[in-house]
Amino acid sequence: MATRITPERIVELEAGGAAAHVADLASLGEQLDRRGIDVEAVIAEVAAFSVAAPSWAVGTGGTRFGRFPGGGEPRSTEEKLDDVAALNAVTGANRTISLHVPWDDPADPAALRIHAEELGLAFDAMNSNTFQDHPSTTGGDVSFKHGSFAHADPRVRERALEHNRYVVDLGVALGSTAITVWLADGTNHPGQADFRRQFERVAEGLAELHGHLPDGWTLLTEHKPFEPASYSTVNADWGTSLLLARAAGPNARCLVDLGHHLPGTNIEQVVSRLAMVGRLGGFHFNDSKYGDDDLTVGSVNPYQLFLILLELVAHGGGALPPLRYMIDESHNVKDPLEDLAQATDQLQVALAQALLVDRAALAAAQDGNDAAGAAEILQAAYRTDVRPIVAEARSRNGAARDPLGVLRRSGYRAATAAERGSGLAATGL
Amino acid sequence: MATRITPERIVELEAGGAAAHVADLASLGEQLDRRGIDVEAVIAEVAAFSVAAPSWAVGTGGTRFGRFPGGGEPRSTEEKLDDVAALNAVTGANRTISLHVPWDDPADPAALRIHAEELGLAFDAMNSNTFQDHPSTTGGDVSFKHGSFAHADPRVRERALEHNRYVVDLGVALGSTAITVWLADGTNHPGQADFRRQFERVAEGLAELHGHLPDGWTLLTEHKPFEPASYSTVNADWGTSLLLARAAGPNARCLVDLGHHLPGTNIEQVVSRLAMVGRLGGFHFNDSKYGDDDLTVGSVNPYQLFLILLELVAHGGGALPPLRYMIDESHNVKDPLEDLAQATDQLQVALAQALLVDRAALAAAQDGNDAAGAAEILQAAYRTDVRPIVAEARSRNGAARDPLGVLRRSGYRAATAAERGSGLAATGL
Amino acid sequence: MATRITPERIVELEAGGAAAHVADLASLGEQLDRRGIDVEAVIAEVAAFSVAAPSWAVGTGGTRFGRFPGGGEPRSTEEKLDDVAALNAVTGANRTISLHVPWDDPADPAALRIHAEELGLAFDAMNSNTFQDHPSTTGGDVSFKHGSFAHADPRVRERALEHNRYVVDLGVALGSTAITVWLADGTNHPGQADFRRQFERVAEGLAELHGHLPDGWTLLTEHKPFEPASYSTVNADWGTSLLLARAAGPNARCLVDLGHHLPGTNIEQVVSRLAMVGRLGGFHFNDSKYGDDDLTVGSVNPYQLFLILLELVAHGGGALPPLRYMIDESHNVKDPLEDLAQATDQLQVALAQALLVDRAALAAAQDGNDAAGAAEILQAAYRTDVRPIVAEARSRNGAARDPLGVLRRSGYRAATAAERGSGLAATGL
Amino acid sequence: MATRITPERIVELEAGGAAAHVADLASLGEQLDRRGIDVEAVIAEVAAFSVAAPSWAVGTGGTRFGRFPGGGEPRSTEEKLDDVAALNAVTGANRTISLHVPWDDPADPAALRIHAEELGLAFDAMNSNTFQDHPSTTGGDVSFKHGSFAHADPRVRERALEHNRYVVDLGVALGSTAITVWLADGTNHPGQADFRRQFERVAEGLAELHGHLPDGWTLLTEHKPFEPASYSTVNADWGTSLLLARAAGPNARCLVDLGHHLPGTNIEQVVSRLAMVGRLGGFHFNDSKYGDDDLTVGSVNPYQLFLILLELVAHGGGALPPLRYMIDESHNVKDPLEDLAQATDQLQVALAQALLVDRAALAAAQDGNDAAGAAEILQAAYRTDVRPIVAEARSRNGAARDPLGVLRRSGYRAATAAERGSGLAATGL
Repeated sequence: MATRITPERIVELEAGGAAAHVADLASLGEQLDRRGIDVEAVIAEVAAFSVAAPSWAVGTGGTRFGRFPGGGEPRSTEEKLDDVAALNAVTGANRTISLHVPWDDPADPAALRIHAEELGLAFDAMNSNTFQDHPSTTGGDVSFKHGSFAHADPRVRERALEHNRYVVDLGVALGSTAITVWLADGTNHPGQADFRRQFERVAEGLAELHGHLPDGWTLLTEHKPFEPASYSTVNADWGTSLLLARAAGPNARCLVDLGHHLPGTNIEQVVSRLAMVGRLGGFHFNDSKYGDDDLTVGSVNPYQLFLILLELVAHGGGALPPLRYMIDESHNVKDPLEDLAQATDQLQVALAQALLVDRAALAAAQDGNDAAGAAEILQAAYRTDVRPIVAEARSRNGAARDPLGVLRRSGYRAATAAERGSGLAATGL
Repeated sequence: MATRITPERIVELEAGGAAAHVADLASLGEQLDRRGIDVEAVIAEVAAFSVAAPSWAVGTGGTRFGRFPGGGEPRSTEEKLDDVAALNAVTGANRTISLHVPWDDPADPAALRIHAEELGLAFDAMNSNTFQDHPSTTGGDVSFKHGSFAHADPRVRERALEHNRYVVDLGVALGSTAITVWLADGTNHPGQADFRRQFERVAEGLAELHGHLPDGWTLLTEHKPFEPASYSTVNADWGTSLLLARAAGPNARCLVDLGHHLPGTNIEQVVSRLAMVGRLGGFHFNDSKYGDDDLTVGSVNPYQLFLILLELVAHGGGALPPLRYMIDESHNVKDPLEDLAQATDQLQVALAQALLVDRAALAAAQDGNDAAGAAEILQAAYRTDVRPIVAEARSRNGAARDPLGVLRRSGYRAATAAERGSGLAATGL
Repeated sequence: MATRITPERIVELEAGGAAAHVADLASLGEQLDRRGIDVEAVIAEVAAFSVAAPSWAVGTGGTRFGRFPGGGEPRSTEEKLDDVAALNAVTGANRTISLHVPWDDPADPAALRIHAEELGLAFDAMNSNTFQDHPSTTGGDVSFKHGSFAHADPRVRERALEHNRYVVDLGVALGSTAITVWLADGTNHPGQADFRRQFERVAEGLAELHGHLPDGWTLLTEHKPFEPASYSTVNADWGTSLLLARAAGPNARCLVDLGHHLPGTNIEQVVSRLAMVGRLGGFHFNDSKYGDDDLTVGSVNPYQLFLILLELVAHGGGALPPLRYMIDESHNVKDPLEDLAQATDQLQVALAQALLVDRAALAAAQDGNDAAGAAEILQAAYRTDVRPIVAEARSRNGAARDPLGVLRRSGYRAATAAERGSGLAATGL
Repeated sequence: MATRITPERIVELEAGGAAAHVADLASLGEQLDRRGIDVEAVIAEVAAFSVAAPSWAVGTGGTRFGRFPGGGEPRSTEEKLDDVAALNAVTGANRTISLHVPWDDPADPAALRIHAEELGLAFDAMNSNTFQDHPSTTGGDVSFKHGSFAHADPRVRERALEHNRYVVDLGVALGSTAITVWLADGTNHPGQADFRRQFERVAEGLAELHGHLPDGWTLLTEHKPFEPASYSTVNADWGTSLLLARAAGPNARCLVDLGHHLPGTNIEQVVSRLAMVGRLGGFHFNDSKYGDDDLTVGSVNPYQLFLILLELVAHGGGALPPLRYMIDESHNVKDPLEDLAQATDQLQVALAQALLVDRAALAAAQDGNDAAGAAEILQAAYRTDVRPIVAEARSRNGAARDPLGVLRRSGYRAATAAERGSGLAATGL
């Protein structure tokens, strides 16, 4: 197993900057105090935040044009957990991992769970895969080429359902309490399928899956307008996702992936709508410039991320509501762990900024039709340099003030490359 | 009053091409007969079709950058009806007009109704206007600058409701049975308003308006992602429109304007979704290349129009279902009547094409995962030159085989220009 | 004339926050010092920055759906200058004004110039208007309805040229040294015009206009993909703008309006391309979520603004290159002066952030294929709270640390409303 | 080798519909004669048309999410040629094949050329691949992960150049006369690379490659806004492509892929621009609804395809100009040969429609600002059912009136599946 990055090692690696951090935090505290904000409360809320790392994203990602794996790719689900543990060591905010079956299909779930516990990790929402053929799902006699839950052939739909039930059962064994169902089902050509019949089949399948959920479990429906389907996708937008969640049952919720929207979509308003009707269930965080780019969280439009988190903080009455928070990125040119560390850092920054918003003043500006005043209130929070808060929150969690720097200086990647070798591609996209 | 275009005059103007039409229709009939299609049934269905002309579109349209009215713009609602009568004379398929209040606010509704009846016209859905201030709506003491139904101030919301009630009452006097509510309410700046409170206010207002509906009336909610609001719009998408219609009441339906979608939206799937849940109520037909361009129906992507009509024909079990069909274009550089004639013609063409689709064979191809076969079936219908069918349908309605040609040769525009003068801009956009 | 906002009055109005500012600037200085950055150099560069205010944007803007003027709209070009002087008083960074003819068409240019000088203002690029008919341009006998420079009729093209020459001559009288030519020329319908002939006519017209430029003058070509033209625009993209500038002559440059791009355009790369070929001439700053929204600079994606300014700082070798910088917004729901103050503030913030980027380290990361490292370098600059720098730069220019706050407390708007009245709409959009 | 589909076999398979075809063609001929169009000239022009089939598209395509190969995938470049020969047998319009190296890297080019000649095929533009690592290109010691021609490391750039030279040399051996260079070079993250240095390196590389071109050869630069690069692409738009082609040398031209444009791009205007400056070199035909979807030509917006071909016919003075025409699709759910047959058919249909446009009347309408008249002229051509023309053109080439039907009835796919087996995926995407 690769070397663990301990809190002690982190303190050692970051000894140099400690004094500067104390000074920066103190002056920020004074500034916030002037604005009537208790910096300690913000630090506590940031420290409490955790976002799941996806098991498929600790390996190098790719596109249909190619994939360039780096050294030290994880060769197994166990090693994916090791990598997430290393990530969590530096961020303190990735305490769970989200598995993807059959990319992850542990022969001994109990052993994997013990391994996770030893690493201080738990299992977040499970993910099922019905967009590829695999011996453990389609088994060679059927195919998901023309759909899974939406397929015209009931045998294929049954196979999709079986796989999803299997994933739930596996999740139970691992201690997970949710399953995210993202379906590639759709069409590439006008006329290829009937929109309504496709929807009805998917709704029926999700309702059956919902019937299989243990107590306390949540079924998350995830929409996406295109890719891999190029002309239509069954669960294409939040409106459809909501109809499907309602058709599935009371424990179904909608998951919002930040990259799964048509150009120009006001995502923060979509979040508000789903929260309003009580069906907002979780997030896949990433960023996007064109299509579903799966880029580093907040790397293209960090202000949009801030606005989304502000919507969530409002929904949670001043704190993040207890939803499922996951990162979903594709790390094609950055080291996956470095990219995940930057993503987590960006989320912590945006959360801290959102917590700084004077929501009472904002509501007053809104009621007074003072758009300029409202903008000032948002900017007052967004422009604040919250890095000392975030660094302090991480420190209190035993993690690094500077996650990327510590990750690099820790030698973790060199160690895994030595141990695991190079040129192998981890399972995933 | 401008010269009427009579069926006799049309026959006279088109005498030259009659023989060719007969020949073309005969050979098309033979071709369709080979494909097992009864051309007479298609002609009858096309002849039965009618689409409302919008009163605001018989004048030259414009943009925020300017407006260039042509000669003969209608100076009153009566003259707008005269223009629609001229349009209907050549198309035979614009038997109703859709008014917009207060751009149209007849002092004597009974007299206007009699004028319409004399012209062979009826009144389609009424449209209310709460996106501009006007003495008859905001009255000078309140303003819709910061919203109408979504406004923070209850007095403004009440004024919006009053205006809408007034429009319903006016519609009753005119024999209309529907009101379309398109709201500009939204924001231009992040933070300007609270998404949820805006939604709740609009939902409440629509529910109150729904309570005012007479028996047999329909309330249509119309969504649009942006313009005039530039950061968020309350009724931005079909998902919101559906939530609003359901909140309003059982007689509320969703209206789909073809130009009111984000880039890449699969509009035909949106149509299917709303039809599926029983809330599809009507259409504003136009086309768009970028934003809400209000261009001639089918002028940018006629195949998409065909696919939408095919969805409707499927929804109607082989014929167009009895929804509210309206044109909504902005005629900036074409003569408005010519543009409306082209729009109506395009709708008739697309309808005929959709009726030619072998839907049983299509369903079989879909169930057999035969995407190439399905594409052939659609192309077999779409590529058919249906102009003889459309021309025949119009002839049977006493209208013109070639609406644009007859309109030009009739001298209608020159007559209105002489009578009404030039340089005036009709009310509307 | 409305009350002037003097430096003394500003100091008085902001006396309360002086101590906090000193403290914040000191701790920021220490932090930057640790990073090897001289805060004084950044303050000086920010203080040197100025961006032109557009004369058409000191009145309330609108859309084709309506316009809701506020109180105190300027009634004349002189009053527009008064408003810009008030703006410049609080920002210290709007030392020029950009006129738009014939919305601004001073009877006595010399007097206007003296008025400007008394206000401490100069005249930035002139703007010509050939997208509307006006007695002083089309004169009633021709029309720009079907185009200006691209019109099929040479008489219309000549009229467009005459107007542009007139604008240059007026600019000479006012001390301006540039003309920005934004053309609405395009089409709404496929086939309406021939793309190539349209281009050739525009190129010829611009070349003739270039021949009329006095020494030291610059001709700026401004592209825009759509609006008001809805199917095609002659100068639709940077590629066309470059071809047109080259066809016009050596003193022609391309102007980039941040809102004039198709969804997803990488504007910072467009900036790089035009800079690379030596034809980058200037900017119209604003922001956009959908189409050309003309929203407050940086209000939708401030990070993109930062990246654009970083590109410019690199182009200028560490400082902003001497291009034409203008704001171009439409102020529909905010007070225009408040919106312009926020826009200017945002530009100063983004400039300060861009100046903080360690460009040598960035180049090293780029050469080392270290994408994660490059991202850290950008974030280190972007996340810095540069408000103390910007506030200090403004103070040194005799302006306000908090422009919006001072503007509100100064009573300027109330004074203009009292003097100028309400309900009038200033010329412009 | 799979069974060849001979002209005799085609006649036999289509014997049933011959009489109907004769009748349909005759009545179309009469109709066109009335409009003053010589149907024979149109048939001849359509019969002369040929479009290259891409070697990578005769296998089943996929996305990053998966790939579902069908039976009978070609196992070698020879078998890809066999498939294109079968395609050409039914369409008569795919007389060339476009290879992609190293997916195609024949050990014996002379033998492959003989094989092609026996099949009646020639080699169209060659395609190089520097977006994947491969022993024959990067060789294990360098990688294209961070770029090829744009890479910071000169050794990688040199390797990219070497590979391209190799492709040219291979093309010479095969009788090709062009190379298409599509580069994936770009970035996924702001700051990852310097836009200008990337451009300059690519320009330099292309100039060196241009120096290696034999007489009569053309170098085609192909732009694409995104994918696989997700934040910026070096050759992102036609403006950059033009700058690169000019930098490369006099025999460089720009290639337009219909799917490589931002949402809303007016592609027909882009075509006009490149034609105008003498640098339009070729096409990759496909269609797209969202991103670069690589869908069947004309399957999403056939009217746009018609407008593009009309632009080309105008550029060619009434006939298609002698450019490089290729199909570039990804066949994920349709049988690849069926999809290619539909694509070719659609191109023939659109060409026939474009040839029917009365261009003199169109020019007159344009000069007369008659947008409605221009629209009528386009519709008169587009709505014509040109299938008899296209069928006749194919017949005269010894091919099938109904390519898809004949392909299915020929048993070709069953024969290849039997011969080649199932479950293998051809090289390509």
